[in-house]
Amino acid sequence: MPEYSIGVDLGGTNLRAAAISAGGEVLARISGRAQLSAGRDAVIGDMVNAIVKLRDQEVGTAHTLAGIGMGVPGFILIEKGIIVGSNNMPAFEGYALRDDMERRLGTTVVLENDANAAALGEKWMGAGKDVDDLVLLTLGTGIGGGIICGGKVLHGHVGMAGEMGHMTVVPDGNPCGCGNRGCLEKHASATAISGMAKVIGLGADLTSEQVYNLAVAGDEKAKRIFEAMGRYLGVALATLVNIFNFPLYLLSGGPLPAWEFFAPAMLEEARWRSFTFRHAETKVEKAILGNEAGLFGAAYLPLLERKG
Amino acid sequence: MPEYSIGVDLGGTNLRAAAISAGGEVLARISGRAQLSAGRDAVIGDMVNAIVKLRDQEVGTAHTLAGIGMGVPGFILIEKGIIVGSNNMPAFEGYALRDDMERRLGTTVVLENDANAAALGEKWMGAGKDVDDLVLLTLGTGIGGGIICGGKVLHGHVGMAGEMGHMTVVPDGNPCGCGNRGCLEKHASATAISGMAKVIGLGADLTSEQVYNLAVAGDEKAKRIFEAMGRYLGVALATLVNIFNFPLYLLSGGPLPAWEFFAPAMLEEARWRSFTFRHAETKVEKAILGNEAGLFGAAYLPLLERKG
Repeated sequence: MPEYSIGVDLGGTNLRAAAISAGGEVLARISGRAQLSAGRDAVIGDMVNAIVKLRDQEVGTAHTLAGIGMGVPGFILIEKGIIVGSNNMPAFEGYALRDDMERRLGTTVVLENDANAAALGEKWMGAGKDVDDLVLLTLGTGIGGGIICGGKVLHGHVGMAGEMGHMTVVPDGNPCGCGNRGCLEKHASATAISGMAKVIGLGADLTSEQVYNLAVAGDEKAKRIFEAMGRYLGVALATLVNIFNFPLYLLSGGPLPAWEFFAPAMLEEARWRSFTFRHAETKVEKAILGNEAGLFGAAYLPLLERKG
Repeated sequence: MPEYSIGVDLGGTNLRAAAISAGGEVLARISGRAQLSAGRDAVIGDMVNAIVKLRDQEVGTAHTLAGIGMGVPGFILIEKGIIVGSNNMPAFEGYALRDDMERRLGTTVVLENDANAAALGEKWMGAGKDVDDLVLLTLGTGIGGGIICGGKVLHGHVGMAGEMGHMTVVPDGNPCGCGNRGCLEKHASATAISGMAKVIGLGADLTSEQVYNLAVAGDEKAKRIFEAMGRYLGVALATLVNIFNFPLYLLSGGPLPAWEFFAPAMLEEARWRSFTFRHAETKVEKAILGNEAGLFGAAYLPLLERKG
């Protein structure tokens, strides 16, 4: 019988789950709100119900379930299957989520950080299909990311690897909640774009999308904001390329439509700052799965574990 | 019969080779000058003679040879076994060194970049014995380095990974031969220490060792130079820790004796710039094999290849 797995993507607002075949075909899916305010038990109940519904009603017995993969915000203590340091989900802090889910569902459950899951999803079925090594940067409120090395997520020794949003790109730059100054995410995230719009006098409460619309309309200040953002991304990319010499670096997230405004500066900056970028074939591209990436990556986790 | 391998470390000035048991014991060694000016054939002849002497005369038939490992300067096209971009050895540029050595010696030969070999040596028999993941930074004329990930060298897709010396730590800093500005090695190498000594008026032609001696004697300018060097190293370390979350980061090279003068600033800088450094156990330590690291790492290469 063909194998499939179920991926769950638990975000700050949405809870999504999908049954996906080992070949990457979506067999069935469920979307709903993540009821974080209703407490941990309610969220776990929702997840279990969604998974059981997909397994027992939607897919049925024509496929064999390889397991469940879950992408969740926060750091994951991979070996223990525990979430720590999740600002969005304090109720899950230190909770043995994986073991609880395995008990309730009677099958293998694999936890993964959501940004890592997105990187893995792009590797499996997205823009990184053809490579085994890539770095994904997700531009949002902050900048998250994931590193795929040899086809697998690079975790580091306690699962905290891949914090590219906190690379120092401006040693004396904007202060960051992490304690550092000049973190990439303080200069190149959607939030940073809004911040620059305020600082340059374009508008006090513009979203990055509104700044993008102004750039499309020809506003010079808006264009310069994206150019600056691109330069900072380029500094970080150059360092990543010098460290990893991976063939592919992907960007995803809300500001992606502004690619035409930030990418030229980003690529120019990366090129002059990295001889590896100039001498080894290096692609910097848009991720293609959008907010489906995490779902695909989550579903891939148990399949990947079987491969060993 | 117990296995052994032969490691060769070909540097700009010295050619060294050692027969090392699978348990890490040096069975025999040979050291000489690297006759780079005499041309490629002379250097290859010297290497072959050294290896044959170790194999046939020193070790003999009591051990089984697993293969030869060679650490060489420059980028290695790993799959092809070819050196490219070696400033010290232009005669080897594009030459099929591995295949030639295999033909002459009738055994497996594995090529590796010298800094990667040093990192692997520290992992096998040095300061990184207890971990599978580490980053080594070698402070010298420039700053080289190697990344060990899952017990193996991280190569990147054409073997150019690990260029930590060219991480941007000062976006508008000192110009670098690589085309960038503010590369780590332009602010924290032995050469950078000499350069700062000149700029601050301590002396026009001081070596980093002389600057160290002045610091030991209590010279405030010399101390401030090492403090600055430490800060730049800390910026780079923080970014490495945020990216990798590895348990261990090692430093080696000529300026290492000045640890007491640069390490406090380095660690302080890394700590405030990286929440991962503060929250996950992270060690920054001196490498312990000195210039033997490359020899051990080279010898480990064929043993590692057997393990698969």
